[in-house]
Parts: sequence; structure tokens; C-alpha cells
Amino acid sequence: METEGALRRLKTVEGHLRGVIRMVEEDAYCIDVIRQIQAVEAALNKVSAKILEEHLNSCVITAVQGNDKKERERVLKEITEVFEMSTKV
Amino acid sequence: METEGALRRLKTVEGHLRGVIRMVEEDAYCIDVIRQIQAVEAALNKVSAKILEEHLNSCVITAVQGNDKKERERVLKEITEVFEMSTKV
Amino acid sequence: METEGALRRLKTVEGHLRGVIRMVEEDAYCIDVIRQIQAVEAALNKVSAKILEEHLNSCVITAVQGNDKKERERVLKEITEVFEMSTKV
Amino acid sequence: METEGALRRLKTVEGHLRGVIRMVEEDAYCIDVIRQIQAVEAALNKVSAKILEEHLNSCVITAVQGNDKKERERVLKEITEVFEMSTKV
Repeated sequence: METEGALRRLKTVEGHLRGVIRMVEEDAYCIDVIRQIQAVEAALNKVSAKILEEHLNSCVITAVQGNDKKERERVLKEITEVFEMSTKV
Repeated sequence: METEGALRRLKTVEGHLRGVIRMVEEDAYCIDVIRQIQAVEAALNKVSAKILEEHLNSCVITAVQGNDKKERERVLKEITEVFEMSTKV
Repeated sequence: METEGALRRLKTVEGHLRGVIRMVEEDAYCIDVIRQIQAVEAALNKVSAKILEEHLNSCVITAVQGNDKKERERVLKEITEVFEMSTKV
Repeated sequence: METEGALRRLKTVEGHLRGVIRMVEEDAYCIDVIRQIQAVEAALNKVSAKILEEHLNSCVITAVQGNDKKERERVLKEITEVFEMSTKV
């Protein structure tokens, strides 16, 4: 995985989440807290999409071009699984 | 695309949606209507996942194993795009 | 429920969904079908939001201003439930 | 806002997110990272639902039972807004 980009993004999200915790500690307005939580989730969705993109362009290409049918099936099945889960969170 | 399965599922969803329309015509309770709309969406998510699964096991394998680099990139980019969109709907 | 608006919107979605079914029958490209399904879902989300808005401005106001504590609790609990479900579909 | 519950939950999510960051630092498998990010999002959805529930049972009741029509409208509009956003993240 191209670690740098994902790491940087996740640390930004961590800072954002810490900001949300501070809001709750300072008794911020509920709806403002919910909105910030939703912003954190939108940022996490972007990180996931980036990681998936890199995964497709590395592991998936290797597996699909390789000779191991089982491995190819496994790798493709995982894509469907994270796609399906992404519609649920 | 393995057309039969997707078609059958989509027609079931269409029947479900027509049921929701009838509920609104008969002035059903708002929350019950919203719950049925959410059930329709959950069913649509499953159809999408099925179609993606077949797509990965046909077009994507062909493109990734093929010699056209542009085509391979296009096909993999689309996967990321529908994944990213799936987090938004 | 303000029936007219919701009905009109749902019938538009039904037409959209029928278009998706036609795409599958005509063997359209998988990714295009998935994108159209996602567009249908986005439209359904808007219908749900509209119905919830009307519900809040009618039933919820009545229940919260009324004297029946049980009814008030029930009505507010439903809001949380459809909110929670909305994050899952 | 009933601060304790939300705070505790958010701090648990923060710990979870820090675990995801560690996974990336240790070069974990992409799909495992995506799955953990999705688990973090599911946890955040639950926190939001809890905060909304408390908000409905406090601020919303006060506003809807109060005499300020503008305030009542504002409070109800916010509910629809976070509901609509929840379908997008």
C-alpha cells in the first residue's frame, strides 16, 4: 500500500475526531456534533476509496494476471464484500 | 452481464416500489413509508453488489489480463468510482 | 402526509427504475447499470427526507405538544430508528 | 447533551481509529484496513444516533412545546438536514 498518503489522511481524520471529542466535552450543540461526526465519516470514505484505488492498481492486477485461480477469486470476492459493506455504513 | 439474476431481482424491487406508491396513495403512516423506502434501497444495494461481482469476474478479468493498458486503467478506475459513490447513497 | 409531492416523486423514481430494468434487458454495460441504480437510490433518499420533513411538521408536533407521554416517546423513538437505518442503506 | 455516554463512545472510536493508523504504519493488507475503517464508521453512526436520541428528548421537546415558532421550525429543519446527510456519508 502507498502508505504515506493514507497515513497522512488518517492522521488528519484523527485530529478531526479529537476536535469532535473536545466539542462534546465543552457541551457543544448536539446537531453541530452530529454534523462534525458526519464530516469525519465523509473523510473516512475518501480514505477508503484511495486505499481501494491503490489496492486495485497493485494487488488486484498481480492476482488477476497471476496463475493462481483461487487467489484471483479471493481478491475479487473481497472487492465485492467491501463494496457491499460500504452501502451499509 | 448474467442478465437473468439481475433482471429478476430488479423486477422484484419494482414490485416493492409499486407497493410503496400504493401505501402513499392509501395515506399510510409516514414512518412506515420511509421504512419501506429504506427496504427498497437495501434491496437495490444487493442488486448492485451482484452486478459488480459478475462484472469483476468477467469484464475486469478480461481487461486486466489484456494488453490494453488504457482499458485496464479505465476499468479499474470505474470500480473505485462506484465504490466511492456507494458511500454517498 | 402531504401525499401529492411524495407520490409524484415516487412515480418518477418508478420510471427511472423501469429504465434501469430496460438497460439490463438490453444488456447495458454493468457499471452504467450500477450508476443508474445509485441514482435511483439518491432519488429515494430525497423522497424519504421530504416525507420525514412533513412528518416532523405534522404528527411529531402534535404528539410532542399533546398530553400522551407514551405517544410522544414512541414518535420520537421512530425518528431515531429511521435515522439509524438511513446510515445503513 | 448527556455528555458521558457520547464521550465514552467517541473515545473508544478514537482508540479504534488509532489502531487503524497503526495497521497502515505496519503495512497491513489494504482490504483489512478498509474493513476496519468501515467498522469505525459503523461505530460513529451509532454515536450519532445516540446523540440524536438525546437531542430529540431534550432540546426538540422544549422547542416544540415552546412558544417560539421560528425556533421550533429551526429545530425540526435540523433533524431533516442531518437525516438527509446521513444518507450521504
